Amino acid sequence: MKAIAVTPGAGVPEVVERPVPEPSPGEALVRICRVGVDGTDYEVIDGTHGGVPDGDDRLVLGHEAVGIVEDANGTALEEGQYVVPTVRRPPAGVETNGYFERGEPDMAPDGEYVERGIVGAHGFMAEYITSPVDCLVPIPAELAQWGFLVEPISITEKAIEHARATRSAFDWRPESALVLGTGSLGLLTTAMFAETLGYERVYCLGRKDRPHPTIDIVERLGATYVDSRETPVPEIPDVYESMDVVYEATGYAKHAFQSIEALAPNGVAALLGVPDDWSFEVDGGRLHRELVLHNKSLVGSVNSNRRQFEAAVDTLAGLPDWLLEELVSGVYGLESVDRAFPEATARVPAAGGSTGSDSDDDTTIKTAVEFTSI
Amino acid sequence: MKAIAVTPGAGVPEVVERPVPEPSPGEALVRICRVGVDGTDYEVIDGTHGGVPDGDDRLVLGHEAVGIVEDANGTALEEGQYVVPTVRRPPAGVETNGYFERGEPDMAPDGEYVERGIVGAHGFMAEYITSPVDCLVPIPAELAQWGFLVEPISITEKAIEHARATRSAFDWRPESALVLGTGSLGLLTTAMFAETLGYERVYCLGRKDRPHPTIDIVERLGATYVDSRETPVPEIPDVYESMDVVYEATGYAKHAFQSIEALAPNGVAALLGVPDDWSFEVDGGRLHRELVLHNKSLVGSVNSNRRQFEAAVDTLAGLPDWLLEELVSGVYGLESVDRAFPEATARVPAAGGSTGSDSDDDTTIKTAVEFTSI
Repeated sequence: MKAIAVTPGAGVPEVVERPVPEPSPGEALVRICRVGVDGTDYEVIDGTHGGVPDGDDRLVLGHEAVGIVEDANGTALEEGQYVVPTVRRPPAGVETNGYFERGEPDMAPDGEYVERGIVGAHGFMAEYITSPVDCLVPIPAELAQWGFLVEPISITEKAIEHARATRSAFDWRPESALVLGTGSLGLLTTAMFAETLGYERVYCLGRKDRPHPTIDIVERLGATYVDSRETPVPEIPDVYESMDVVYEATGYAKHAFQSIEALAPNGVAALLGVPDDWSFEVDGGRLHRELVLHNKSLVGSVNSNRRQFEAAVDTLAGLPDWLLEELVSGVYGLESVDRAFPEATARVPAAGGSTGSDSDDDTTIKTAVEFTSI
Repeated sequence: MKAIAVTPGAGVPEVVERPVPEPSPGEALVRICRVGVDGTDYEVIDGTHGGVPDGDDRLVLGHEAVGIVEDANGTALEEGQYVVPTVRRPPAGVETNGYFERGEPDMAPDGEYVERGIVGAHGFMAEYITSPVDCLVPIPAELAQWGFLVEPISITEKAIEHARATRSAFDWRPESALVLGTGSLGLLTTAMFAETLGYERVYCLGRKDRPHPTIDIVERLGATYVDSRETPVPEIPDVYESMDVVYEATGYAKHAFQSIEALAPNGVAALLGVPDDWSFEVDGGRLHRELVLHNKSLVGSVNSNRRQFEAAVDTLAGLPDWLLEELVSGVYGLESVDRAFPEATARVPAAGGSTGSDSDDDTTIKTAVEFTSI
């Protein structure tokens, strides 16, 4: 079968041939339909995050997938059912551990998990995968075409759940939310605040010039686009308002600290980005005092569990069709896989020194690879 | 009646004469027994925090009090009942607001409250006070002598409640706690982790030389004393272990950031200190990444509400007598009130240029002023 694999650091993914996997007892064989591409994939391609399975020199990419059960293999799943696989698995050679037993692999520390398509286990960019059935989340057929968005939505489901938890010791009534970042995760989260979470006032911060499709999406959602070049995060309370929730999806480390200044009293900032080391100066006294005197909270969040995938399926059903159509800027077959990775191919100079693929325009929001049409 | 008042910035409190207050309907008249002194009092004395009531130029100090109901004034309280007053009240001229109605004045933002003895309202260092009865928390007579510790304990009750809340979205099983600070709040909190909260391993960080009574207290509690001069906070995971909870009670702004490095995966740091502005460099990328990839949280916490005062009464009952005896290094009557404020009097050079009171030795832990013996 065909799969998309990468030698971390090589800078480009490639189509490879691999044997069709065979399901073990308790596993199903899934025929993959579509797999989304996100920033983590680029980090894996560049070799700055994740890693290959022991004994292998390449990693099959892909952690945002939707597929169809091809062989239920005696499990309770039905053949023909669309499913979304979760990402974390116990480490190689380990049956399970407390985090997996409790249904909370997302809370497992380093060494207690691998992540399919990211670190230590092959991913979902292949014609077929096998998976334990408790890691396969059913999705209705009418949502299947967008099923590769369930994983990123589940990331926000978890982050919001944890952010709410931080405020559960008192009667918290949030009305305003600020999303930092206009990437696909930022836009999906902006849509969730505006459409399914019922926030009254939603803001999304980016650094794009008008006209731009992402700004159009933000505004069609009824949210306010904030240009960080005009209004840096610490100035947002003066120019707009202070925020009950800040959701950071930029990986820009200064945002983690500036978010404290953007928060209203009793607010919470959820941090999602994974920046590299970067030293800079902060007014640590002021930030510390702000956190204390105004009962503010910061919470970091990574990965998501099955329950959050299930919530994400419900959320996906509640998002408007126009949003999903606008958000997914391209779905590409294996014959044009380079167009699904515009940022990777763009970094490889083409013959003659040009900058490569024409799909690397600034309007790409979210791409996916299609293995089987839905 | 006698009261202890301060002109903020004057550097020393003074004994003043004031009229005995008369209770309004719904209020009781309370005869004050003892009032504790803490770091906030010194900030008020120095004029760096808090402020006088409108139209006044002096503030009666004191927010950690225990007294006895002298006149129940037709309320449900019984005369002779020992009580501890809570600290926050609605702003002058305001009957109530949503925060007070919900029993959560500790979550009120600036302008929605005053604090007795700290900002905008006279405190409890007086022979008599009046208070609405819903701001008076009963305490058993046998605990009354230590009743002025209920307010600081309630501060920790709230902080721990909020810290736990941040971890309530998953199955969190904390075992290790690190308290930053060997002041009275740090020692009380160390005692709570060790004695009433059931943590298996408790650490308390300070910068005192052995032998020292605070180190003796830490060790008698079964906790480990960490000298920050030998083991700075970021090195604690290597030298001791990474911590499920960090509780910051130093007001040292770098600790707010270093605590992220001391935390175990899925850990939470509760921040209590109120530092001044102070700019310094941090590896913000590393700290941001740590928060995200290991699901860590920071939560600021200020003040406390009636429910947390009630929990603090129960906690006080569970603390060993030896601890309270050791912790309270002096209770002083009005005739030697300067000894209750050793840090204030020490900063005023005595005639001849000596450094003042002999009570300013380094072994003072917690003092209180006594108005009426118990």
